[in-house]
Amino acid sequence: MHFEEEDVLLRIFLGESDVYCGKPVYEQIIRKARELKLSGATVVRGEMGFGAHSHMRSANVLSLSTDLPIVVEIVDSEANIEKLLPFLDEVLKEGLVTKESIHVYRYQKH
Amino acid sequence: MHFEEEDVLLRIFLGESDVYCGKPVYEQIIRKARELKLSGATVVRGEMGFGAHSHMRSANVLSLSTDLPIVVEIVDSEANIEKLLPFLDEVLKEGLVTKESIHVYRYQKH
Amino acid sequence: MHFEEEDVLLRIFLGESDVYCGKPVYEQIIRKARELKLSGATVVRGEMGFGAHSHMRSANVLSLSTDLPIVVEIVDSEANIEKLLPFLDEVLKEGLVTKESIHVYRYQKH
Repeated sequence: MHFEEEDVLLRIFLGESDVYCGKPVYEQIIRKARELKLSGATVVRGEMGFGAHSHMRSANVLSLSTDLPIVVEIVDSEANIEKLLPFLDEVLKEGLVTKESIHVYRYQKH
Repeated sequence: MHFEEEDVLLRIFLGESDVYCGKPVYEQIIRKARELKLSGATVVRGEMGFGAHSHMRSANVLSLSTDLPIVVEIVDSEANIEKLLPFLDEVLKEGLVTKESIHVYRYQKH
Repeated sequence: MHFEEEDVLLRIFLGESDVYCGKPVYEQIIRKARELKLSGATVVRGEMGFGAHSHMRSANVLSLSTDLPIVVEIVDSEANIEKLLPFLDEVLKEGLVTKESIHVYRYQKH
């Protein structure tokens, strides 16, 4: 295996209950990423956390909030990641987006 | 969207059952991060893994261990992250802390 | 706490239902990592995503697919991570492997 490509990991931290036009924002980001043919995206649900405004989010029984933290992770070239950013500007009201350089190796079915 | 800030992503790998003064360490880290007004923190539960001492941790039915891996992720400036480190020294007995530079964009409600 | 070591974070994005010789690939990666005495590995299950071939993976009730995304995270020295790569070449048919430099601090029981 050789890590030849220098790509970008974009991570979007938002809330499970964040909606845009009545639909969960994280679902819409995934659908948009697929529509833009980005190479991959993954949604991970956290079980506790707080965000831009220090709302405590927790999955424990004492706090029945369903607003758990969500992390969306997308890996692609800088150029392809750029295509997604205007959509994020549109749908995200609160949240944090991080970007970092990574080395990537892809396995593909032949 | 412009990624103008250079921030730090701190990730803390520990066990779900790690306790300090009778309380889960990962919960205490989240509470401390909020107390220090760090900008955000997220707890993600893994479903299998091993750590500093190669204990196998798994959520499958054959192994009823509740000591699953936990990853706490915190994003903030280097200066703010520094404020949390003495607390981590106090509460962590085993585990791994990683630090990396990232670019951040924040969305805030107006 | 001083982050003295420069280590590597390896992240493997694959599908829950990917198998090799009849066993889940992500489980085999964890077992191999332990066998190689790597310092730690964590499996996180995503709840939605798509990968190398744009299969939509989701945990929601409309799509009863069990092929959810899995992220395996391994932290160790560059030299130790290298030992795992031939095994990944053998077991991964689809998927994405990313590598990045991080700073690490380890806590060990005394």
